[in-house]
Amino acid sequence: MKKILLNSRPSGEVQSENFKFVEADCPVPGDGEILVQAKYFSVDPYMRNRMNNIESYVRPYELNEAISGNGIAEIVKSNNDLWEVGDLVVGSLPWQEFAIPRAEKIQKIESGEGLSPTAYLSVLGLTGLTAYFGMLDIGQPEPGETVVISAAAGAVGSVAGQIAKIKKCKTIGITSSEIKAGYLRNDLGFDDTIDYKKIVNIRKTLRKLCPEKVDIYFDNVGGEISDGVFYSLNDFSRVILCGQIALYNLNRLSMGPRLYPQFLIHRTKIQGFIVYDYADRFKEAQNQLKDWLKNGTLKYRENIIEGFENIPAAFQGLFSGENIGKQLVKV
Amino acid sequence: MKKILLNSRPSGEVQSENFKFVEADCPVPGDGEILVQAKYFSVDPYMRNRMNNIESYVRPYELNEAISGNGIAEIVKSNNDLWEVGDLVVGSLPWQEFAIPRAEKIQKIESGEGLSPTAYLSVLGLTGLTAYFGMLDIGQPEPGETVVISAAAGAVGSVAGQIAKIKKCKTIGITSSEIKAGYLRNDLGFDDTIDYKKIVNIRKTLRKLCPEKVDIYFDNVGGEISDGVFYSLNDFSRVILCGQIALYNLNRLSMGPRLYPQFLIHRTKIQGFIVYDYADRFKEAQNQLKDWLKNGTLKYRENIIEGFENIPAAFQGLFSGENIGKQLVKV
Repeated sequence: MKKILLNSRPSGEVQSENFKFVEADCPVPGDGEILVQAKYFSVDPYMRNRMNNIESYVRPYELNEAISGNGIAEIVKSNNDLWEVGDLVVGSLPWQEFAIPRAEKIQKIESGEGLSPTAYLSVLGLTGLTAYFGMLDIGQPEPGETVVISAAAGAVGSVAGQIAKIKKCKTIGITSSEIKAGYLRNDLGFDDTIDYKKIVNIRKTLRKLCPEKVDIYFDNVGGEISDGVFYSLNDFSRVILCGQIALYNLNRLSMGPRLYPQFLIHRTKIQGFIVYDYADRFKEAQNQLKDWLKNGTLKYRENIIEGFENIPAAFQGLFSGENIGKQLVKV
Repeated sequence: MKKILLNSRPSGEVQSENFKFVEADCPVPGDGEILVQAKYFSVDPYMRNRMNNIESYVRPYELNEAISGNGIAEIVKSNNDLWEVGDLVVGSLPWQEFAIPRAEKIQKIESGEGLSPTAYLSVLGLTGLTAYFGMLDIGQPEPGETVVISAAAGAVGSVAGQIAKIKKCKTIGITSSEIKAGYLRNDLGFDDTIDYKKIVNIRKTLRKLCPEKVDIYFDNVGGEISDGVFYSLNDFSRVILCGQIALYNLNRLSMGPRLYPQFLIHRTKIQGFIVYDYADRFKEAQNQLKDWLKNGTLKYRENIIEGFENIPAAFQGLFSGENIGKQLVKV
């Protein structure tokens, strides 16, 4: 079988030589273990940080270790009565064709819900849950408030924005192409969009789009885009620090204006969070998300690339903003 | 009588020519009004921002208008049965020897509490209240946590640090001289101090002083000192944005590292606040502060300069870090 190892730690942008494809024997499950065959892998920006040798809320990947991330796999051999051959599971899996996952790392996907199993890697997976807890728990949107979302057409942003709409907020998405902007406005019901590649000054554009100022900023990108939004923050505004993708590939410290006096005057709350901190509420959130999916108020899109060998390229594509919705790889 | 007007808006550091001393007729109170004679004035860093022509949570001073701030005055003529000649009042007062304050802007100081009336401009005034609500409401200190306070020997910092000690936190004060550092450690019970003028790198110093990292940072200064502290923030840390005095005198935008990825990873909450937002809880806070004063767990110091003509100089002194405790002027 094939597996993908971390060959070297990237300096700046991830390159294909940072990955190494190797052939290995298919593992043999022991007593109580199961063997699974990978079906889908999720690629996510936070994995870039795990490629650095820096201790964080998840441990860094080791060199010559299989990279791991969320995935869906089918049980192909079971030495455990609790798991049945043919069942699909979702959870943390190594980038290899077959694996023996630890039971506490995976969950069975219930069939018969009328949902594609891949929903558990997207709208019901960690990105959907991230949008849910970030927007509702930290953002606490009130009807009539103005919400701005960066990387709005991405896996997290597109769900976060729709939740803001469900909560009756004026919702503005920042994105990087007219196609994405159209998708946000026409398919997802965003009130307005900013194509940041087309405008000169995000600060001025935002002032024009929301003279009433911004109550909630759901930040997936960081950097200059976020600085531009920070100037429009309203009194008692909330900034949800969800991702900083603009900074992940930088070798040096990014410098920007110290806007703390603005935050002070406006009593802004800036809060970082990690979705795993809400693990004991995942079920509750998934039930709510499923309800919204069923009644049509929540939509999602997946961008599925085929081929195990294309996992690294799919991951690299995250940083050039190519995808709409959740980026997945079908093995 | 004498009054002090805003003569010109400062560019950068406040200069004496930004103030204008003028002679004026003593105002004559009408029906229902009272005439007060100024006794003490409080000078505070936030007033620097009011000298700029920028709309904020308090309106900017007008040119050729008497500068105003908190003060204590004695009633010398009363045309209102609710107010008695001889009583002391505290509240927002113009920098002039006599004034006719609006009733809703002032409060009578109760005598017989065993406290100097000036306590209502310091430990029981806006600076003490700022320390109280910032530390308790935003910081929410838990026993055993580590708290760092910048401008720790100032009016706000010295109270905030003592509240942290009352809440059984390890408390470290950042200050600018050995005299102040000694005062914090020996008189106020701070566990440790950093004299930022003596050290090369606040980041490294702090790592050595608190390898367990910082749970709460009560920020009165901003700028490079705060950047240094930000590197030591613990998971689920809280940053109380109370003052940014290092930035108030700058003509240009201050640039610094974008540390949002750190805040994200550590689930840090950064929150700005304004003490006036807590106005309906001032009485509760003052009662608690009085209890602590009475049982000796809370101490305070006032630095009182004499002479109406020295108000501008006392104000300017705030920015060179000359004062220990609350800076007041006795008229």
